[in-house]
Amino acid sequence: MKPYALLTTEERRAEYAAVLEKYEAYCTEGLSLNMARGKPGKEQLDLVSETLSNLIDYGDYICDGIDVRNYGELSGLPSAKKLFAELLGTQPEEIFVAGNASLQLMYDLISKAHTHGLLHSERPWCKEETVKFLCPAPGYDRHFKICQTFQMQMITVPMTEDGPDMDFVEEAVKDPCVKGIWCVPKYSNPDGIIYADRVIDRLAALKPAAPDFALMWDNAYCVHEFEGDFVPFRDILTLCRECGNADMVYEFASTSKITYPGAGVGVLAASVANQRYLSTLVSFQTIGFDKINQLRHVKLLKDKEQTLALMKRHAEILQPKFHAVLESLKNEIKPLNIAHWTEPKGGYFVSVHAMPGTAKRTVQLMKQAGVILTDAGATYPYGNDPKDSNIRIAPTLPPVGELRTAMAIFCTCLKLSALEALGI
Amino acid sequence: MKPYALLTTEERRAEYAAVLEKYEAYCTEGLSLNMARGKPGKEQLDLVSETLSNLIDYGDYICDGIDVRNYGELSGLPSAKKLFAELLGTQPEEIFVAGNASLQLMYDLISKAHTHGLLHSERPWCKEETVKFLCPAPGYDRHFKICQTFQMQMITVPMTEDGPDMDFVEEAVKDPCVKGIWCVPKYSNPDGIIYADRVIDRLAALKPAAPDFALMWDNAYCVHEFEGDFVPFRDILTLCRECGNADMVYEFASTSKITYPGAGVGVLAASVANQRYLSTLVSFQTIGFDKINQLRHVKLLKDKEQTLALMKRHAEILQPKFHAVLESLKNEIKPLNIAHWTEPKGGYFVSVHAMPGTAKRTVQLMKQAGVILTDAGATYPYGNDPKDSNIRIAPTLPPVGELRTAMAIFCTCLKLSALEALGI
Repeated sequence: MKPYALLTTEERRAEYAAVLEKYEAYCTEGLSLNMARGKPGKEQLDLVSETLSNLIDYGDYICDGIDVRNYGELSGLPSAKKLFAELLGTQPEEIFVAGNASLQLMYDLISKAHTHGLLHSERPWCKEETVKFLCPAPGYDRHFKICQTFQMQMITVPMTEDGPDMDFVEEAVKDPCVKGIWCVPKYSNPDGIIYADRVIDRLAALKPAAPDFALMWDNAYCVHEFEGDFVPFRDILTLCRECGNADMVYEFASTSKITYPGAGVGVLAASVANQRYLSTLVSFQTIGFDKINQLRHVKLLKDKEQTLALMKRHAEILQPKFHAVLESLKNEIKPLNIAHWTEPKGGYFVSVHAMPGTAKRTVQLMKQAGVILTDAGATYPYGNDPKDSNIRIAPTLPPVGELRTAMAIFCTCLKLSALEALGI
Repeated sequence: MKPYALLTTEERRAEYAAVLEKYEAYCTEGLSLNMARGKPGKEQLDLVSETLSNLIDYGDYICDGIDVRNYGELSGLPSAKKLFAELLGTQPEEIFVAGNASLQLMYDLISKAHTHGLLHSERPWCKEETVKFLCPAPGYDRHFKICQTFQMQMITVPMTEDGPDMDFVEEAVKDPCVKGIWCVPKYSNPDGIIYADRVIDRLAALKPAAPDFALMWDNAYCVHEFEGDFVPFRDILTLCRECGNADMVYEFASTSKITYPGAGVGVLAASVANQRYLSTLVSFQTIGFDKINQLRHVKLLKDKEQTLALMKRHAEILQPKFHAVLESLKNEIKPLNIAHWTEPKGGYFVSVHAMPGTAKRTVQLMKQAGVILTDAGATYPYGNDPKDSNIRIAPTLPPVGELRTAMAIFCTCLKLSALEALGI
């Protein structure tokens, strides 16, 4: 098949009829698949189930001299801090181990910025006329939704192959209303990009007008390679400190995609001064987090070596799924020249850039055929993709067989919406 | 010994010398005891340790048709909602099962009131000139600290033997700046009072000027009898609904003192309209809470009958501790007429009302002898007990032997500070 743009009207009509027939056949199959979120598959959850629940024997509740069952240790078990410091390349005293997910830590930081202000805030953000936030896009919809619920003004930052457009960012932070930026620096959501060193250097060296500018460093996929070996990644806390920006950065991570989503452990890494400031604020909020779960994770993951070994087993499960997605796109779509996509080696997504103006239609067609994708536009601030082009594919949940079916339908829908856009 | 007030100056001096000698002997013992917080003792934690950790066998992660290990079910596992609805006497659809502690749920509700407003708020509380909150005192210091961190103006409400002074409350809520009240209705912290029915009826029937007035119903000790049988307690959600105040009340509970402090399950009970409103706000904050821990609790506690049976075992551990405290006070202090105290049948505290002006001094003397008590004044807004009289005894953590020693020292300190106050 030739690129669609080169087809004659007649050829397009013939192709449309053929593709439509295929699509309608899929629709009658009564499928019900969900590829909307980066949800691990059952095989991944099974990796740790046998051991994780039953790791703590009776009488074995003392860790670091602390009875983990009782109140206390607001900032987390020392052993858990040590583990996450090793994983992230920070110091244990820069680690705050909290609840079951990093999203809640991010929300909470922004919430406290509004109600109390951050360490270097002149006033709580709720007392500011306008709060603006930089949103590299395509990006993670839940970051943008946090901005939205706090009525912050989102500024879309173009993404390059190396990370956010730093010329744009450096210019934007001259506005004192610009209070922060969202970054997923390793295997970015959804593009799967690893930020280039020169981008990271410029981020660490930013000189924002706002004294309380927050570099929100969501290192969600810090050890989440599914192809090839672990890619070492520089510690952003050190880089910021070296640039005189020690208190500017807040790094987040979790075990949601290492052990269990929702029953993992979330982590905030930040300067000791930030830890001190935030701990005081958090002391009004809780007496402490679930240290038994922290202990379970310490016993299961042990150290970086053991954690990376577990991630290799995740990779064995995930690699065939990502390959199925990419193979399908390569065979069905590449020759037609109606979309391009990323080929990440880690993270949870494949980011498809469909023909402009066709993303919404494609997702709608998928839904009619029984396959739920992330809403088109969700990867942009306010859910508004100006080109209506980006579609985030989350291949992790369905088994490979179902995934192949879903991708066959996806390719059919991409074709249909492209043909519709080209005119039939 | 006669009441201290009836002693001659000479007798007082002799008594002071004798008591001081005893005190100084204690001081040399190098004790290190902590009775500051309502922390369960090790024997209590042991009650569930053997079973709780290992309740979930491999493959047994499906509950209510949900794989509890994965994302989802923001408002909690249906089975967990059912369990807590039975314990609190509410409907399952009125239950939100969240993180590991109810304090965080309370903080979060007040925080969201500030950033977003509650269901019937005219604007977020951070946009209000003044926010006032009613604080029955003596009360729970962490409630007051939440008020403090949000710079709300605390109004002290006198406590009676039946609960808060309702004449005072009904008058105070006529001020539209008064946005809520803290209540620990069963075995109140620290007095151990069960609110009388007529107090509860008047609370449920309040007609506050503020449309978003919040009745903060911290039912922390809902099944926490340590003496006698379970005392049935009316469902505040029903009572409020019957008074046309369905959306005014937010009830909180947790398993912190049923299973584990810090690794339990927290619950918010509220009207379906409130649940709907709050769930939307929470959906920006998290994808879901730890459902594995919810499942553990469902399997361990099963239902109200099983939960009450477990609480009977807690009672067996706690009763001797409370008896040790009361016996010591009765023998050593009662004849001297320098303090009075409550004799609760549930909850976690004994509230001692020392001779006015002597609470701070007593706590200071205790500290010098190596026993940490809750700061004097902590049970009042801004940490300021106008009479400097109330001392909260938390007898649950130390073993009975240590507790007897601590109480002997406490009685000595009470005597010393009373004698100092009377003049020596």
